[in-house]
Amino acid sequence: MEAITEVKYALDTFYFLVSGALVMWMAAGFSMLEAGLVRAKNTAEILTKNVALYAIASVMYMLVGYNIMYPGDAAISSIWPGISFLLGADNEVAAVVAGGEDAPYYSTMSDFFFQVVFVATAMSIVSGAVAERMKLWAFLAFAVVMTGFIYPLQGYWKWGGGFLDGLGFLDFAGSGVVHMTGAAAALAGVLLLGARKGKYGPNGEINAIPGANMPLATLGMFILWMGWFGFNGGSELKLSDVGEANAVAMVFVNTNMAAAGGVIAALIASKLLFGKADLTMALNGALAGLVAITAEPLTPSALAATAIGGVGGVLVVFAIITLDKLKIDDPVGAISVHGVVGIWGLLAVVLTNPEATLTAQLIGIATIFAWVFGASFVTWLVLKAVMGIRVSAEEEYEGTDLTECGLEAYPEFTGK
Amino acid sequence: MEAITEVKYALDTFYFLVSGALVMWMAAGFSMLEAGLVRAKNTAEILTKNVALYAIASVMYMLVGYNIMYPGDAAISSIWPGISFLLGADNEVAAVVAGGEDAPYYSTMSDFFFQVVFVATAMSIVSGAVAERMKLWAFLAFAVVMTGFIYPLQGYWKWGGGFLDGLGFLDFAGSGVVHMTGAAAALAGVLLLGARKGKYGPNGEINAIPGANMPLATLGMFILWMGWFGFNGGSELKLSDVGEANAVAMVFVNTNMAAAGGVIAALIASKLLFGKADLTMALNGALAGLVAITAEPLTPSALAATAIGGVGGVLVVFAIITLDKLKIDDPVGAISVHGVVGIWGLLAVVLTNPEATLTAQLIGIATIFAWVFGASFVTWLVLKAVMGIRVSAEEEYEGTDLTECGLEAYPEFTGK
Amino acid sequence: MEAITEVKYALDTFYFLVSGALVMWMAAGFSMLEAGLVRAKNTAEILTKNVALYAIASVMYMLVGYNIMYPGDAAISSIWPGISFLLGADNEVAAVVAGGEDAPYYSTMSDFFFQVVFVATAMSIVSGAVAERMKLWAFLAFAVVMTGFIYPLQGYWKWGGGFLDGLGFLDFAGSGVVHMTGAAAALAGVLLLGARKGKYGPNGEINAIPGANMPLATLGMFILWMGWFGFNGGSELKLSDVGEANAVAMVFVNTNMAAAGGVIAALIASKLLFGKADLTMALNGALAGLVAITAEPLTPSALAATAIGGVGGVLVVFAIITLDKLKIDDPVGAISVHGVVGIWGLLAVVLTNPEATLTAQLIGIATIFAWVFGASFVTWLVLKAVMGIRVSAEEEYEGTDLTECGLEAYPEFTGK
Repeated sequence: MEAITEVKYALDTFYFLVSGALVMWMAAGFSMLEAGLVRAKNTAEILTKNVALYAIASVMYMLVGYNIMYPGDAAISSIWPGISFLLGADNEVAAVVAGGEDAPYYSTMSDFFFQVVFVATAMSIVSGAVAERMKLWAFLAFAVVMTGFIYPLQGYWKWGGGFLDGLGFLDFAGSGVVHMTGAAAALAGVLLLGARKGKYGPNGEINAIPGANMPLATLGMFILWMGWFGFNGGSELKLSDVGEANAVAMVFVNTNMAAAGGVIAALIASKLLFGKADLTMALNGALAGLVAITAEPLTPSALAATAIGGVGGVLVVFAIITLDKLKIDDPVGAISVHGVVGIWGLLAVVLTNPEATLTAQLIGIATIFAWVFGASFVTWLVLKAVMGIRVSAEEEYEGTDLTECGLEAYPEFTGK
Repeated sequence: MEAITEVKYALDTFYFLVSGALVMWMAAGFSMLEAGLVRAKNTAEILTKNVALYAIASVMYMLVGYNIMYPGDAAISSIWPGISFLLGADNEVAAVVAGGEDAPYYSTMSDFFFQVVFVATAMSIVSGAVAERMKLWAFLAFAVVMTGFIYPLQGYWKWGGGFLDGLGFLDFAGSGVVHMTGAAAALAGVLLLGARKGKYGPNGEINAIPGANMPLATLGMFILWMGWFGFNGGSELKLSDVGEANAVAMVFVNTNMAAAGGVIAALIASKLLFGKADLTMALNGALAGLVAITAEPLTPSALAATAIGGVGGVLVVFAIITLDKLKIDDPVGAISVHGVVGIWGLLAVVLTNPEATLTAQLIGIATIFAWVFGASFVTWLVLKAVMGIRVSAEEEYEGTDLTECGLEAYPEFTGK
Repeated sequence: MEAITEVKYALDTFYFLVSGALVMWMAAGFSMLEAGLVRAKNTAEILTKNVALYAIASVMYMLVGYNIMYPGDAAISSIWPGISFLLGADNEVAAVVAGGEDAPYYSTMSDFFFQVVFVATAMSIVSGAVAERMKLWAFLAFAVVMTGFIYPLQGYWKWGGGFLDGLGFLDFAGSGVVHMTGAAAALAGVLLLGARKGKYGPNGEINAIPGANMPLATLGMFILWMGWFGFNGGSELKLSDVGEANAVAMVFVNTNMAAAGGVIAALIASKLLFGKADLTMALNGALAGLVAITAEPLTPSALAATAIGGVGGVLVVFAIITLDKLKIDDPVGAISVHGVVGIWGLLAVVLTNPEATLTAQLIGIATIFAWVFGASFVTWLVLKAVMGIRVSAEEEYEGTDLTECGLEAYPEFTGK
């Protein structure tokens, strides 16, 4: 039995690592999506933000976040829980083959790798919503607080075994813990930051500010769709027997079907509402489908998953329109995709998973939103007071690329 | 033995899922390739088509296609074969460990996932050939018929255990079932649609219409090359013992070598014919190498695979030139790459696989081509009568982005 | 035990194949990175170089390189070592289950696949450094020599069991064997080629020549980061027991942390030096972190890995500045990233791996550099004499796209 336990351990670890690499790849997806949806003059800056936030998330989660979120798992030293992890400790053969309930069945390091890329995902959501007007270094300072403290604490409440988990709040791969969290932090930032100049006219008109590069945005969406197989697929946390392998496969299928449902629904909604097949709505529809199924990609049938994603795809179109009416300026639609549809995903768990209760889901939504929005709001406020969070009107006009990064994203294309 | 049977099941399922994710990624590859090879004014529209067709393929294949193609596998209910699949049924532990010839050795859901991404691949081939002039919604309507009915029926004849399989027709991963199928459907559409305005002059001149974004096209090619490891590699269908693992590895090597052979051959051919190292020919050469080896990536040696791919790379250059002489306007060369070279790949099986016969291969080619071309032609005809398939001359001049999607792909770059 | 040995063999083979596919993907990363960092008029040419070099590397390494580098492994025929490999031989079940020290535990073909994509990586490094002025066909001729002979010989010295391995020189995944090798070959080419026209002014001024497409460069960096999980992660060479699985997971974590450290360090360095958060420095910082950890991604703790990557990130900024002062014109910073930081990575092994000695590392660095630089210099010299290596001043002014490839990368964007 020893040998087979070791092979299973290796397989589950590999499954984690491959899933984690796919989620890491989502960082490229968010970068391309956001870079495609902003104007040329703000492209290099948003790329810089995305590259830097991933790096900051990795470092901060290693230093403090992982230990806050999984104190039991990482704690060996009583001085600094998780210090042994920082020094490179991993599971030993004896502990694995000993078996029993608590025996590790995959590498601790692979778990950290999988978790760290999730944090970066949450933070990537923020960068899109505050694009084209937020100061680079204020954003990076927020990333430090968000990935080191705000995200991990609510992550502990659910996935670390905290009180939301005890209450029966269900969130398989993070419609709430990751996506709504990113959206809540973004919303707090956007409210303090205000809209981009020219977005909302003096007489209530809403001006479209088209993104500069649609193929890039589409590429970003496809990267995210692919990465989501790791995001949801890896969140089953085990693969190595028949039941678990079936479950992982079901999650892959449902993830794919929900995204497909989201695309079709958003495309039809946009055709009916605007008379055009708006590509950006199709892209946000796919992402909405993915966010919607993330809270429960296992219990729905493939047909139900398509429907859950489809509802997400319709919701996101109306959410984007509504936010614009409220003059909440979100250049890429991140708050709608990850926030509004994240909530829908959390509620939809009740439809297919008999273990879910509406009460627990509502408590989970309210708790996570209140904490993340509140803590983020305070953090943004402090940053606003200390260093300012918005670039000057002149810098906004010139574009943040030149003023923040000292280069242009497309120096030969825009004829500036 | 039970435990090891379960681990093998998990490993084979994981191998399917990873392969499937790579094939899904090919949807991004086709999108980028096609978006790079059309003009800026038709870019958003072709992106919309590619995103939507993948979603439609997923839904239609779930609802009807999978059941047509694999009736035996999916049938449990006698009313609607595959209904149990739609409701989420998967293999049970007891059936797996029972063993025997018919015991499932991987998740049914992982098989569906792998199959569904193949359908989307076939449909992606069509969008490139009809680019820059086909109506968006007519195209999507065709996608419904193609992915729900036309593709699955011929897929059943070969991979579902139908009469082509019984005849000894060999097509490992789909040079015919997937690639020639896509090309035949595309050819039918192109013949009914006619050439882009300005492509062929009144005095027989052939005007080059350069694609707007070569890095994007190159990225698309690389994505397809990478995804093809899943496409061919996963088509061995099993990995979990020494013989199967060796086979999968051989398929990876041959897939890579055939693409390499295709690049080198196409580049040299283009240098000799045109005096220039035409990048688009190199890209199509790589794809031709990949298509050529797809019918049989297992039995050739690495050296033979390189040669089979190389022949594909030369063929594609001449096919593109010939189609232009015949005034068959295919903006991305899809019919040449997937159709002409797909046929070459099916014939080349005879060279290395002793079980193949030229007769069976020819019957397979003729049958699939006749069915797909004929059924597609009728479908396009009906669509032409009902809703029209070609945009107006004015819309074609303006670009399909504004008229179909209501936005521009590169609003700041083209100085429109 | 037979059955479990076979499953382990399958798992280790699959791990190799997935890792290899990720490394193959790095070819797309280098293509996008380099295409983004050159001017629009030289973009199609560098794409053509990258596509073609990957194909050439695959073919040359199959024909001769693999046999030079791993003569023992591939040799069966005494006439041409490795001939059996070319003809498609792989491990047999009997040999695997026999067990013992020398029993194969993964497919020979999967090993070849993994190795061949490494060669292409080394060659990709060269294309960036000689961009915008090197003749296409001279470059491809160099690729033949480099991938068939220069790389494999030094690869044999270390990984094939040659004298550097015997001396105790340590290079886990190739900071030296792959990255410094690429940089040394590039340096030899750049010295013979000279700087791009206009890069260095007559009065000592250094003119920035901005790259045309920053999102593309950023995408390239993310692709490389992702691919590096295969590059380093696969270089553990085994996965299938607890100890090996832990090791692979540790390598993934350290690879990620080193890149994160590189980004943060380079960004801060660029802010302090230039007053701006230079995106290209952040990208090169990530790559520097990855190169730095490649020589030893297993023994450092996650914290140490972050620091090793961080030092790489600072080093690369100063190296790029210094090379410019020396008028060594490297458009993408490849020599700094892969050469200077590659050396740092090889030296850093001593810090965390007790088996490493500074002497052995220095001998390894000197030997590989001397061989690759010398052999490359001679090869470039011969090519210069025979066919010329630099395009004419007029061709350089016009851009290599039109003169070498006969097309433009962005025909509608640059208003040419």
